Amino acid sequence: MKEIQVGIIGFGTVGRGTAEVIYKQAERIAKRSGLKIVLKRVADIVSDTLPAHFGNVILAKDANDIFNDPDIDIVVELIGGTTIAKTFILQAIEKGKHVVTANKALLSIHGTEIFAAAAAKNVEVGFEASVGGGIPLIKALKEGLVANRIESIMGIMNGTGNYILTQMTDYGTPFAEVLKDAQEKGFAEADPTYDVEGIDTAHKLVILMTMAYGMHMRLEDVSCEGITAIQPIDIEFAKEFGYRIKLLAISRNHGDTVEARVHPTLVPEKHLLANINGAYNAIHFTGDMVEDVLLYGKGAGMMPTGSAVVADIVDIARNIDRQAINRVPSLSYLPDQFTSRGITPMESIRCPYYFRFSTVDKPGVLSKIAGVLGNNGISIESVIQKARKQKGSVPIVMRTYEACEADVTKALAEIENMDITIADTVKIRILVDEEE
Amino acid sequence: MKEIQVGIIGFGTVGRGTAEVIYKQAERIAKRSGLKIVLKRVADIVSDTLPAHFGNVILAKDANDIFNDPDIDIVVELIGGTTIAKTFILQAIEKGKHVVTANKALLSIHGTEIFAAAAAKNVEVGFEASVGGGIPLIKALKEGLVANRIESIMGIMNGTGNYILTQMTDYGTPFAEVLKDAQEKGFAEADPTYDVEGIDTAHKLVILMTMAYGMHMRLEDVSCEGITAIQPIDIEFAKEFGYRIKLLAISRNHGDTVEARVHPTLVPEKHLLANINGAYNAIHFTGDMVEDVLLYGKGAGMMPTGSAVVADIVDIARNIDRQAINRVPSLSYLPDQFTSRGITPMESIRCPYYFRFSTVDKPGVLSKIAGVLGNNGISIESVIQKARKQKGSVPIVMRTYEACEADVTKALAEIENMDITIADTVKIRILVDEEE
Repeated sequence: MKEIQVGIIGFGTVGRGTAEVIYKQAERIAKRSGLKIVLKRVADIVSDTLPAHFGNVILAKDANDIFNDPDIDIVVELIGGTTIAKTFILQAIEKGKHVVTANKALLSIHGTEIFAAAAAKNVEVGFEASVGGGIPLIKALKEGLVANRIESIMGIMNGTGNYILTQMTDYGTPFAEVLKDAQEKGFAEADPTYDVEGIDTAHKLVILMTMAYGMHMRLEDVSCEGITAIQPIDIEFAKEFGYRIKLLAISRNHGDTVEARVHPTLVPEKHLLANINGAYNAIHFTGDMVEDVLLYGKGAGMMPTGSAVVADIVDIARNIDRQAINRVPSLSYLPDQFTSRGITPMESIRCPYYFRFSTVDKPGVLSKIAGVLGNNGISIESVIQKARKQKGSVPIVMRTYEACEADVTKALAEIENMDITIADTVKIRILVDEEE
Repeated sequence: MKEIQVGIIGFGTVGRGTAEVIYKQAERIAKRSGLKIVLKRVADIVSDTLPAHFGNVILAKDANDIFNDPDIDIVVELIGGTTIAKTFILQAIEKGKHVVTANKALLSIHGTEIFAAAAAKNVEVGFEASVGGGIPLIKALKEGLVANRIESIMGIMNGTGNYILTQMTDYGTPFAEVLKDAQEKGFAEADPTYDVEGIDTAHKLVILMTMAYGMHMRLEDVSCEGITAIQPIDIEFAKEFGYRIKLLAISRNHGDTVEARVHPTLVPEKHLLANINGAYNAIHFTGDMVEDVLLYGKGAGMMPTGSAVVADIVDIARNIDRQAINRVPSLSYLPDQFTSRGITPMESIRCPYYFRFSTVDKPGVLSKIAGVLGNNGISIESVIQKARKQKGSVPIVMRTYEACEADVTKALAEIENMDITIADTVKIRILVDEEE
């Protein structure tokens, strides 16, 4: 049986998961592909031994041992980060190795350079594990939806953020407390910035948009808001209106321009995305032919992510075996078919809005707010005004009809300049369920 | 640019959809594959003309015109049924053509013969559209989950049945009335047997199990119950218990044996499958590495199904172009790796149950029922007994703890032999949400 030899750089959680999946599933993969996937080398700066059941796998500190091994066909980069990982991947490509990575930060920032280098050397770069953990969504987008103009992408792509929001929703616990608990349990990183500020989600959206639209895309193109300002009271009011608050990546394809945004969103409670809880991820695509498609699963974790990494390894192994390298272009579209697209300015986004105003407790306040909104073309759909004081202020909560972001920004500035608000207004965009 | 020529047999809804997708997406597919997909011929016994925008496509009554055309690489069978369709597919294979089909009935009954014939001629058989319409789930199972032992398959795979149950749930309308309305609107066939009796779902389960487990599988192996006996009152009681009633295909992998069943099921209301409504389908896989994966989308329809058919065409076209035919085995596992597995007898299935007894209105009835259940090792989890008379009888509704099907069958027979029931007992299996 033909052997395809693999080297893994980085033996953290996903590195170990990948090695375990290769080990545990070798026989099954052979029965499905006729190929024997062999883990030959692991490079890791901290590990001194490998689990005994891996047998003859060679452990080293130096990744060059992998690049310089002529037997190794595929290099798996699992160290993360955007500096050394980039160097390693470019070195592997330079040596003619195929690459598999789960590194969304790297691909979203240096993807253009990496994919160009790979194309020049005619090697493959697999990245199924970079978005949605174990969910086979990159392949679905590249191949399953090949006959579709992608009209929209919407998704919950960060398990940590979704876990925190789910806990806040189920137990009414404040953000900081849930975060601390999640950190203690190992569900959240010591530095949670990427997860809770939406940056990790933005990385993943860049990758999906690049493939979905065949466009050059930069991380700076994504408008990004995190979940740190979400309070249990907003989750409660959202429930009263019939919504759940989720951190969504959203892109809509307007042709010349495309939307690219990550922000907390009120999702109608019957929408599937409102029902994705805990550490799960779900990505919703709309195609002009296929209509709605949603893919759901574990967005992270040792074995689920390992499953996706190994799916890439097998995919490339089949291409090596059949001499069909780059049978499907890495980024869906052929490199010379990539185009530049404009990014729809946030100011021109239109959607309904949730507002929570913290106001002084005086008569006429609602009327003043409503007046400013009306003058800016924003219609109120419903209002909740209760005698629940928060730190001496009275919350006025409302849901608007569809309005333009620029008008909203202007109206909220006007309202905050009046002497009726005593804290920043909370503004959360509302998702319209287009399936209904 | 290399051309791959296609002939379509059958120009009904999906045939027209496929032709439209090829026409509308030709440029996009070329940008993604470097290949030009050309619809050269259509064979249909009733059509006399083709839409003008298809240009030079040749229409004929005789499918042999397609088989005998040496330019045609891929034959798309979309006439349905298990007789002529089989002959056509075998003829196409005999002529060395690759085949794409959406025909789940045919593949579930004659798949073994068809895939063997294709292997002998080294041609491909694509069938993405046969399960789940536009959802790219066959590819996900074959390639995305390649490094997984599939532990379970659960799904809503019939849009008509799900539409009927959704209408019954939302409006309390009886089955017969919803069916009649669906037929008038064209959502249900004039003969709805396959949809409402679960047979269509069983066809699809056979295809998925064959691929998921690499096993020979027969339609007769599936235990199959439809939704014709479901009454609005059961949907109401299910709601009170916190469930929705869905027609599910269920398979669990026990190693030596595998479960294969299709029946109405009480699904916990928070489970994603409980929230799949109308004509949508959703398939949930559990893999030993990836854990849960769910894929959701339109389970039927002209363009969604066309999208899946064309994804298969492009997949095969890429393999033709790269001389990598059967790069991935049609049924996931290499033909010589297929094994025979036993089917878990229904009598040994264990799950919680919903019962609705129609009993005479006398004291002591509940106690008698509970006694028989207890004697058969079945524990009651909760009971609803209300003064709602149905045709002179009183319904006693209960949810049990997990019990064995054989014990349930025996207990219900004993209860029906007593003089306290005045109509058949309704028995519906309950899904346990293993994610919780």
